[in-house]
Amino acid sequence: MALTPVEAVACCLPLNREPLSQEAAERIVPMLKALADPVRLRLLSLVASHEGGEACVCDLNDAFELSQPTISHHLKVLHGAGLLEREKRGVWVYYRSSPSAMSSLAALISDTTT
Amino acid sequence: MALTPVEAVACCLPLNREPLSQEAAERIVPMLKALADPVRLRLLSLVASHEGGEACVCDLNDAFELSQPTISHHLKVLHGAGLLEREKRGVWVYYRSSPSAMSSLAALISDTTT
Repeated sequence: MALTPVEAVACCLPLNREPLSQEAAERIVPMLKALADPVRLRLLSLVASHEGGEACVCDLNDAFELSQPTISHHLKVLHGAGLLEREKRGVWVYYRSSPSAMSSLAALISDTTT
Repeated sequence: MALTPVEAVACCLPLNREPLSQEAAERIVPMLKALADPVRLRLLSLVASHEGGEACVCDLNDAFELSQPTISHHLKVLHGAGLLEREKRGVWVYYRSSPSAMSSLAALISDTTT
């Protein structure tokens, strides 16, 4: 059963291309807030770099000296911000990074300085 | 007189390349925290997209319905996180986005999904 991810965010031009609108900023900020935490940033990276681009909670618990409920809380925040998609298969929930969220962030912060 | 910017952050591989280390996460998170605010995100974009890639406070005050001290506060936070560099010329302070900070963020969040 696929759980409903947050609606895809269609966003953005690079920050240095043109001034970001208030509307675009307000769509992006929740993602940045969710990412602005060392555990969540590492969790997202663990999921995104995991074999096949997905990981279940069972793959993630060993990576942190944190309780399983704490890990689940952080995963929920990442999912709530649209950064992680999740799908229940059997007894486990599998996570993968949201391609549309990652594309939006990458477009916004793309390095056009080089 | 060039004011000293925060030390350049040499960082990171894409999030989906390999699990981000705790050390790397802790270097990146202050930048994400600084960005995770609609006014600051728009300020950074205004500076980065301004003619010549730099802007003085005089160019920024009109873009927001905020007091000049509030704008200055947000610019200080962006500078403190290493996202903006600043230089005093004459009576004005000029800001530009930090190439190394933007490169680090772009590398981390580069879109390797396409």
